[in-house]
Amino acid sequence: MNDDNVRKIAETVARQMTYRLTLDTAKKIAADVESKAVQMGLKVVVAVCDAAARPVLVECMEDSYIASYDVALNKAFTVVSLKMSTAELKPLSQPGASLYGIQFTNGGKIVIFGGGDPLKVGDRIVGGLGVSGGSEYEDTFLSAYGAECFKRLAGE
Amino acid sequence: MNDDNVRKIAETVARQMTYRLTLDTAKKIAADVESKAVQMGLKVVVAVCDAAARPVLVECMEDSYIASYDVALNKAFTVVSLKMSTAELKPLSQPGASLYGIQFTNGGKIVIFGGGDPLKVGDRIVGGLGVSGGSEYEDTFLSAYGAECFKRLAGE
Amino acid sequence: MNDDNVRKIAETVARQMTYRLTLDTAKKIAADVESKAVQMGLKVVVAVCDAAARPVLVECMEDSYIASYDVALNKAFTVVSLKMSTAELKPLSQPGASLYGIQFTNGGKIVIFGGGDPLKVGDRIVGGLGVSGGSEYEDTFLSAYGAECFKRLAGE
Amino acid sequence: MNDDNVRKIAETVARQMTYRLTLDTAKKIAADVESKAVQMGLKVVVAVCDAAARPVLVECMEDSYIASYDVALNKAFTVVSLKMSTAELKPLSQPGASLYGIQFTNGGKIVIFGGGDPLKVGDRIVGGLGVSGGSEYEDTFLSAYGAECFKRLAGE
Repeated sequence: MNDDNVRKIAETVARQMTYRLTLDTAKKIAADVESKAVQMGLKVVVAVCDAAARPVLVECMEDSYIASYDVALNKAFTVVSLKMSTAELKPLSQPGASLYGIQFTNGGKIVIFGGGDPLKVGDRIVGGLGVSGGSEYEDTFLSAYGAECFKRLAGE
Repeated sequence: MNDDNVRKIAETVARQMTYRLTLDTAKKIAADVESKAVQMGLKVVVAVCDAAARPVLVECMEDSYIASYDVALNKAFTVVSLKMSTAELKPLSQPGASLYGIQFTNGGKIVIFGGGDPLKVGDRIVGGLGVSGGSEYEDTFLSAYGAECFKRLAGE
Repeated sequence: MNDDNVRKIAETVARQMTYRLTLDTAKKIAADVESKAVQMGLKVVVAVCDAAARPVLVECMEDSYIASYDVALNKAFTVVSLKMSTAELKPLSQPGASLYGIQFTNGGKIVIFGGGDPLKVGDRIVGGLGVSGGSEYEDTFLSAYGAECFKRLAGE
Repeated sequence: MNDDNVRKIAETVARQMTYRLTLDTAKKIAADVESKAVQMGLKVVVAVCDAAARPVLVECMEDSYIASYDVALNKAFTVVSLKMSTAELKPLSQPGASLYGIQFTNGGKIVIFGGGDPLKVGDRIVGGLGVSGGSEYEDTFLSAYGAECFKRLAGE
């Protein structure tokens, strides 16, 4: 490995370790998700949390579900606080499964159906995205779409 | 289409867009539901919310369940905030189903069994009705009955 | 004291001991308070609780304060649960006064300004009335007015 | 008054009666407030509610106070649900004043210091703005500033 390669890897690692999700980036993710939702004929709530599972941004499109405010925000909380997407959590939290009961442990903040994805830089979770407003399938699609948009924004 | 027909359609659309549920109308719906409950030998709580899922009216018949106050009010909240009857939400929120877990996401305000129906003018949800006090079958019947009474009151 | 007088007193005592506030009576009190509010140019929320401080009726006039739902309901709770009007509780719960701190003890359900009055039959509290929507002076006036209306309804 | 003037007034009234705050407008208000905050060297949370006191938008600048999320959102709730700025509510809710205690009545959602302003079209409150992150003086300035920006956006 030559010096240039070593330097590149070191830079990447340093960037990944120090990357911090900004409000500006959160706005761009939300705008991308909302544009896609409009194309799909949906009205959604988009929430973004930071690496500490604290909210950075919540946006509610006109006529989105009133219930979606809590759902989207809690999806964003869930993915950061449990380090997995809400779709991954779903089978684990069904009755009889290993984590059944986790949905009752955090004051109603754990959501166990699709529509929440971690925002990652390298392997590090730097934030969480929650989308609510369509069917579970649509919300799952939109949060995965938003997580992909984030990768581009973060230069991954 | 002649001018008269156009005007009639325009008037209907305008009415539907501007219709607002009043306390007076809510009282009439509740009175109808309570009369029917008396006929059925039931004691119920009836709750009506507005288009923003804010409560307009709650009435508790003598000897209705103490628990029914929260249940009826939350049913009315649920149908407006998720834009469907609680009977429709029921199968979606069973273990294994797409929205299982939604009952834990909104601070205990989502009810997932029958007895809550949207109040509609045209296709627009202008409020929500929640009834609690009988069996699920009876509550479902009574909230659907109340929603029908509302249609008559609203001139639908 | 002759037999007739004794019988009358016994009947009064029996009535007072067994009197129970009904939904129908609560509706009449609320209607009276709302008529008076309209005369005063006010939009109020009226709440009535029973002798166990459980809600019997809540009515929200159009364009009343959103915050008034909780305030009126909690006023009705307060007067029954502490056996005094909220106007009487006010001086007792100011910083330095004997009950200062009571406003923090019951999960946010104790209201310490005017607009809540007990509903009495004889000396017995059979329910509570809470009104919210005007100034404190106006709410205090309206809840006292409602309590007087109740006395007439109860044949006091 | 000639026909043109009548029409103009009628149009203004109609616009005021039907105006509805959109997510897009909320984003513009927030962006204006954040630009001003940057100029002032502040990091704030900005929240916008609709006419029913339901959240439309929350934005948290980097390094704003964690506590400011709830404070800003609750300021926006307060101004719509009580129809006054939080600065106006402040003197009314001090110990000894007429509404002392209102800060404990609505589940912790009433904020009684400056930084919350109603968003008005004509005399009608169409939403609420809450800002938190600076001193009370700064927050009060910023929410008033945001309310002025809204007036321009709404063509007032």
